[in-house]
Amino acid sequence: MYDFTAPFQHPAGSPIRELFKYLGEPGMISFAGGYPASDLFDAEGLQAAAAKAWQASTRCLQYGPTDGLPELKTQLLALMARRGVTCAPEEMLVTTGSQQGLDLLLRVLLNPGDTALTEQPAYPATLQALRLQQAHVVTVPVDGDGIDVDNLAARLASGAIVRPKLLYTVPTFANPTGATLTRERRLALLRLAVQYRFAIVEDDPYGDLRFAGNAVPSMLALASEVEGSRDWIVHFSSLSKVVAPGLRVGWAIAPAEITRRCVIAKQTVDLCSTPWTQAIAAHYLEAGSLERHLPHITQAYRGKCEALCDGLRAQFGEELAFHQPEGGMFVWARIPGVVIGTLLPNAIANKVIFVPGKAFFADDPDTASLRLSFAAPNVDEIREGVARLKRATHATRTASVASVPA
Amino acid sequence: MYDFTAPFQHPAGSPIRELFKYLGEPGMISFAGGYPASDLFDAEGLQAAAAKAWQASTRCLQYGPTDGLPELKTQLLALMARRGVTCAPEEMLVTTGSQQGLDLLLRVLLNPGDTALTEQPAYPATLQALRLQQAHVVTVPVDGDGIDVDNLAARLASGAIVRPKLLYTVPTFANPTGATLTRERRLALLRLAVQYRFAIVEDDPYGDLRFAGNAVPSMLALASEVEGSRDWIVHFSSLSKVVAPGLRVGWAIAPAEITRRCVIAKQTVDLCSTPWTQAIAAHYLEAGSLERHLPHITQAYRGKCEALCDGLRAQFGEELAFHQPEGGMFVWARIPGVVIGTLLPNAIANKVIFVPGKAFFADDPDTASLRLSFAAPNVDEIREGVARLKRATHATRTASVASVPA
Repeated sequence: MYDFTAPFQHPAGSPIRELFKYLGEPGMISFAGGYPASDLFDAEGLQAAAAKAWQASTRCLQYGPTDGLPELKTQLLALMARRGVTCAPEEMLVTTGSQQGLDLLLRVLLNPGDTALTEQPAYPATLQALRLQQAHVVTVPVDGDGIDVDNLAARLASGAIVRPKLLYTVPTFANPTGATLTRERRLALLRLAVQYRFAIVEDDPYGDLRFAGNAVPSMLALASEVEGSRDWIVHFSSLSKVVAPGLRVGWAIAPAEITRRCVIAKQTVDLCSTPWTQAIAAHYLEAGSLERHLPHITQAYRGKCEALCDGLRAQFGEELAFHQPEGGMFVWARIPGVVIGTLLPNAIANKVIFVPGKAFFADDPDTASLRLSFAAPNVDEIREGVARLKRATHATRTASVASVPA
Repeated sequence: MYDFTAPFQHPAGSPIRELFKYLGEPGMISFAGGYPASDLFDAEGLQAAAAKAWQASTRCLQYGPTDGLPELKTQLLALMARRGVTCAPEEMLVTTGSQQGLDLLLRVLLNPGDTALTEQPAYPATLQALRLQQAHVVTVPVDGDGIDVDNLAARLASGAIVRPKLLYTVPTFANPTGATLTRERRLALLRLAVQYRFAIVEDDPYGDLRFAGNAVPSMLALASEVEGSRDWIVHFSSLSKVVAPGLRVGWAIAPAEITRRCVIAKQTVDLCSTPWTQAIAAHYLEAGSLERHLPHITQAYRGKCEALCDGLRAQFGEELAFHQPEGGMFVWARIPGVVIGTLLPNAIANKVIFVPGKAFFADDPDTASLRLSFAAPNVDEIREGVARLKRATHATRTASVASVPA
């Protein structure tokens, strides 16, 4: 009936969300979601913040400025200062989660057919956002130290990649790989951005979730060490993973002219992000609750991550390869010789789910890879889940041993 | 530095938001904003709803389904049933204000260059959203009874308008004209949509704000009277004007396949609208607070509207023409012989502001028109504001009598 020939053609929807139907099954253990652990939310601190916000109830209930409530921006600027970044209010835009920041940026910056670089594997919603804007997506491989900057440099130098407009990356505790880009690679990437004049889109929702190793400054913070690079950085962050996604509070930091254009686009898109939860977030941050509560989250995630990694080593040994992350929510694994798309139904039958790695590839998927999130299940569930995964893997190998090369 | 050649080129931003800088001036009386009256918010009812929502705090704090919290959808479906519309959950999408519904719809339906019809004058953010999607905008004139359906029918029949993809309208208490489309015109418009196969995008944020005259069913409700027309209707509504904009709760009702595609686009755009305020809205509606509180708002708006219209008649007499609305928030006026762009600085000097009509025209602006919102100021301020407007008009005429034709 309708003529659905509009540019946005991705009727299948998110491959991750397709798995949600299994979450409600009794006894299912999920390594699939990208959700933070609900039992670690700081309900007490948020309730106190909500009560304070309500003292100015009109502020909660009326429309707010498109770029965000000033009192929230003040708190977010202070938070960024603690992360080593100085920026001006006119460089910051409060968004409905950092997801919206990416959508606004792509609408402001990209023409159909423009080349956009992403790490591979990458967050699927980013790939979907790039498709929605009809970008020409070019991928750069990732290893245990993040995006392979030498690979990118060589392809830029040889002309294999021509005039990219931007590069999207989650440099710290990446989704899906859990990898963190080294300081050296960050600096090299900043130099490439200046040289080849492309924007680095740094998505940083997980950076505060470090539970091991030494902190690496964000690309935005490191921009002060590479002349001219600050002009080429757009930085997204969010309270979704460190406070609560239900606030829908994210923010973008970009050169003022980009921010100004994103603000104008946002007037059209949703006028303003929810003022009520913005006011709550402002009071939560002002009270110092983030700093107070964050260690509880990172400590719990450390235990969960160790349970998962120890379990994988104990159950699988050399059969499964992975890189143990120093923070975040994800472990990226490979089971050579197993087609993960075939493993998944066996896993579901064994009451455990995860996301097949294929979902994170724009091209040429690694069919032996999978993403395991340790954030939501508790330590006992994680141990049991790994045992189930092992059983499912065994069942898959037994059934397919003749047809799949080892 | 950046190459800003992307499709979205409207760097000036909203002409209405440009006026916001004057709102803070001491003693300024504003007829400019499209904001509902802050002092009419049902703070008590919303506080009670917030307390109930918090009893399931995880529900408030975690991500929610992209199409909306099921308990909110249940309440919104019941609200639509009270408005005479039966629809299925899979036809409804909860959005970040109805503004987001329009943005999602245009992204799903429109190709660059597609013809989109709007009433003229029209809501500027709609014009901006159409530009963002690179639509070919064709306008249809509006009179005191809403969009001129005969004019549209004639242009469709003659081939002057070819294959429009959609028509955007605010048929009840329109922004900016305050006009309400008659029942006969609604039925005729539905028949045209079926005949010429275009979508009617009915934006209905103000329909419940009736304080005079007899109710007219929404186009969506009337679709049952025109065979096949339900397939061609997309309906937006919102709690922003009848409860509070700070919730950012709107919704779209569309044929299931359109809704499905909008949901997929929304996964990319912001994942989900704020679950916390969705939960609050669900409890607010469930408690019957909307029905209980709405009469307070409409009664207050009736008094404000009468103060404005009586004041205009008393101060201006025949000098100013307007159509008294039966609901909503806006009066549309013309002062023949006065260029409103010239009146505005005089008005600001006299401490009163409004929106020049020009902002609402996609083409061929009526420079003698202006929009006056009576929602925010109180009755005394409205009376004083009209007196100031009269003084400003006099000053404008005196200064420009030689140069502007009467």
